[in-house]
Amino acid sequence: MYVLGIDGGGTKTKGIIAKSNGEIIAEATVGPTNPNSVDKWSLKKELQNLFTLLKQQCDSCFFQLKHVFAGMSGVGHPTTKEMVQKILVDLLPDHVHVTVNIDAINALYSGTLGKPGIVQIAGTGSITFSINHDGLSDRVGGWGYLSGEMGSGFALGRDALEAAFLAYDGLGTPTAISNFLLEYFQAAKLPDIIHAVYQEKNQKERVASLSKIVMRAADNGDQVAQGIIQKNAVHMGKSIACLQTKRFSKKDRVPVVLTGGIYNRLDLFQAIIEKEIRQHQLESILTVPKMEPIGGAIVAAWREEGVTVNSSFVKVFTR
Amino acid sequence: MYVLGIDGGGTKTKGIIAKSNGEIIAEATVGPTNPNSVDKWSLKKELQNLFTLLKQQCDSCFFQLKHVFAGMSGVGHPTTKEMVQKILVDLLPDHVHVTVNIDAINALYSGTLGKPGIVQIAGTGSITFSINHDGLSDRVGGWGYLSGEMGSGFALGRDALEAAFLAYDGLGTPTAISNFLLEYFQAAKLPDIIHAVYQEKNQKERVASLSKIVMRAADNGDQVAQGIIQKNAVHMGKSIACLQTKRFSKKDRVPVVLTGGIYNRLDLFQAIIEKEIRQHQLESILTVPKMEPIGGAIVAAWREEGVTVNSSFVKVFTR
Repeated sequence: MYVLGIDGGGTKTKGIIAKSNGEIIAEATVGPTNPNSVDKWSLKKELQNLFTLLKQQCDSCFFQLKHVFAGMSGVGHPTTKEMVQKILVDLLPDHVHVTVNIDAINALYSGTLGKPGIVQIAGTGSITFSINHDGLSDRVGGWGYLSGEMGSGFALGRDALEAAFLAYDGLGTPTAISNFLLEYFQAAKLPDIIHAVYQEKNQKERVASLSKIVMRAADNGDQVAQGIIQKNAVHMGKSIACLQTKRFSKKDRVPVVLTGGIYNRLDLFQAIIEKEIRQHQLESILTVPKMEPIGGAIVAAWREEGVTVNSSFVKVFTR
Repeated sequence: MYVLGIDGGGTKTKGIIAKSNGEIIAEATVGPTNPNSVDKWSLKKELQNLFTLLKQQCDSCFFQLKHVFAGMSGVGHPTTKEMVQKILVDLLPDHVHVTVNIDAINALYSGTLGKPGIVQIAGTGSITFSINHDGLSDRVGGWGYLSGEMGSGFALGRDALEAAFLAYDGLGTPTAISNFLLEYFQAAKLPDIIHAVYQEKNQKERVASLSKIVMRAADNGDQVAQGIIQKNAVHMGKSIACLQTKRFSKKDRVPVVLTGGIYNRLDLFQAIIEKEIRQHQLESILTVPKMEPIGGAIVAAWREEGVTVNSSFVKVFTR
C-alpha cells in the first residue's frame, strides 16, 4: 500500500510516494503551485508534470495509491482549497482519496508524526497553527508582512532597519546593527543602503535576510538587538499560548513544533518563548523537527488512512 | 523681474512664473520628474515640455527670468541633484540662476515664507526637515516605508492592520478599527480583506489610506486607535525636538510647518506633539501652511535673489 505526500509552495513543489516504513518508491520536484502566485492552468500543469515524473519511476505504484495528501501554501481560503482538490481528483485514478490542506500541516506533522499539537513557522513570514485532539484546527498570525507579523524574518529585519535609522537620526539608542548593516551592504553610511533595499525586486526577502544581522548583534551583546529578539519572541510565546488556551486542556503538555529559518537560532528565542508560555500557566514541549516538511505530508496521508508511521520512517525522512 | 518656481514630484510637476507681489505670469503642469521613478530622458522631456508651455504664455518673460528654484522629490543624493541641475541649466538661458533642492524646502517655505524653521511632512511617507539661521539643513526620518517611518500615513495604516488582526487572533484588545476595516473593504470577516490589501498595485498607498480609519476610530473614543495616534504623534514631536536641539538655539521659538494629508486632522496630533516638544524644554510655533507647496518654491527662488515676498503674494498663493 502506498501514499503520496505533496509539499506545495510558491517556489517549488515536491512529491514523494512512500510506504509507512519510510521506503521511498518515487520522488519528484516540479515548479510552484501556490494558487496565489500561479494561475489555475499553470497549477494544473505542474501537478500533471509531478504525476508524470512519479509514474515514470513506478507506474504500477501510482495506480496502487491509497491516499494523496497535498499540504499546499496559499490554500487557506475554502474556495481555493476546493479548486486545488478538484484539480487533483481529476488528475488521479478514481479510487484514490485526496486531501488538500494548508502547508502548515506538513510542518506540524513533521514534528508530531501525526499527533495533535501546535506549529509555529517563522521564515520570511510567520504563522502559528494548531490541530487539537478533536481534529479541530485554528491559527493566529500569518496575515502577511503588511500586518506586522511579529516573529517573522521580515519583522526582525524591519525592526533592524528602524532601529538603525532611529539611531542614525539621533532618536534612538546607538546599536551594533548599524555597523553590521553597513558591512552587509558594503556601504559607507546608512542612507546609502536605502537604494539597495528598495531596488531589490523581492524587498520582502531582502528585509527578511536582515534578521541574521539582528541575531549577530544580539550575539555581540547589543541591547537594541536583544530587545528586538525579546519583543518578537514574546509575541511567538503569546501566539502559542493563545492557541493552547483556546484548543487544548489546561493540563496538556502540548507538543509545539518550531520551524522556519528563524529557528536555526533557537537558542536566542527558546527561553523567552518558554517563559511567556509559563506565564500563561501552560506547559508545552518545544521541538525543532528533524524531518523535512514533505515527510509531514506523507505522515498526514498515512494518518488519513488510520496508519501511524514507524521509527524507520522517521530515520529515512530525517535530514 | 521674474522668477520660476518648480514643484516636482512622482506624479506631476508644476511650474509658475511670478513676481514677488504674487502676480502670476505663467503657469503649467506636466508629468512626473522624480529621478527615482522616471529616467533621465523622460525627466528632461517633462521639463522641456514645462518650459514650452510657460513660454507659450509669455515668451519674453521666460527670457527675463532671474532665478529658477526647483524643489524636487527624489533629489536627496548629491549626484542626482547635480544631474537635475545640469538638465535645467542646459534648458535655460545662460543668465538664469538655477537652484535645485529637495521638495521639503517648498513645504517649509510655504509656511515660513523663506525664513528658517522646521517642516514635518506626513503624507504616505514622513520626513522632518530643517533649515537654520546659518542656512544649514538637516533631516530626520524619510527613510522609506520599510524602515518604520512612524508618523506617516503608511505607519498609521500598518498599525491599524496589525491592531485589527491581533484583536481577531485574540492577542490584542478589541478595537473599532476592525469594524471600520470591514466596512471600508465591504468584507464579512477580517481575513477577507487580506486579498484586497495585497492585490492592490500600490500597496503602500492602500495601506496609507487606512490611516483615515484610525482617525475615525479615535474620534469614536476607541482606545487602541488613540494609542496608535499617541505613539505616532510622540514620534513626530521627538523628530521636531531632535532637529530643534541640533540646529537651533534653546531659546528660539522655531516655526514648525506641518504638511501632508495626516495634518488634515491636526486636532488629533497637535496637543501630543506640543507636549512632546515641551518635554524637551523647547518652544515652537506649529503652523499648517495655507499656501500651496509651489508657492514655497517661488518664495525660495525670490529668497535666493535676496527678495522677501510681500503680503499680496501670500494672498494669491493661499488656497
